[in-house]
Amino acid sequence: MSESKENVVLIGAKPVMNYVVACITLFNSGLDEITIKARGRAISRAVDCVELLGRAFVKNLTVKDIKIGTEEIERFEGGKTNVSTIDIVIGKGDETSNE
Amino acid sequence: MSESKENVVLIGAKPVMNYVVACITLFNSGLDEITIKARGRAISRAVDCVELLGRAFVKNLTVKDIKIGTEEIERFEGGKTNVSTIDIVIGKGDETSNE
Repeated sequence: MSESKENVVLIGAKPVMNYVVACITLFNSGLDEITIKARGRAISRAVDCVELLGRAFVKNLTVKDIKIGTEEIERFEGGKTNVSTIDIVIGKGDETSNE
Repeated sequence: MSESKENVVLIGAKPVMNYVVACITLFNSGLDEITIKARGRAISRAVDCVELLGRAFVKNLTVKDIKIGTEEIERFEGGKTNVSTIDIVIGKGDETSNE
């Protein structure tokens, strides 16, 4: 639930631009790789975030890895339910290969 | 818009089980590989479909490839808008490597 790692952006129910700005901030802080995580219905927003980022904000954005999975969640009323997850690893590719 | 290829399941707004059944039918017809496509909010349903399929119906389901992208769509009121897409290629792995 918490963003334990520094290079992880957890997608929730806020507007997609919030997460795009979070990613830009992380890239500008010097990170070259970010993992975008989402669960359930936020999965489509995670894809929106990556696409918007690559289309409008970060040149040479590369999608390094996409993983899907399932998490088991305990319901308040007891019992368990499954929710789908997605992890998208993106990187800021350099135009020059010298660095 | 149309499911032009035989091994493509296009995820829409119907319940996820409809698409799971469609995938099972395709696998049972002899196909070893299916591409699941979705756009916009249906993306999370596409992931649900793959996860449910692998968890409950198809043994040794393998996710061979996941691609995300953007499609430009013409609005009825004029102008264009972008929508995110996902393509998930799944395969029915064999337990034995003899065949």
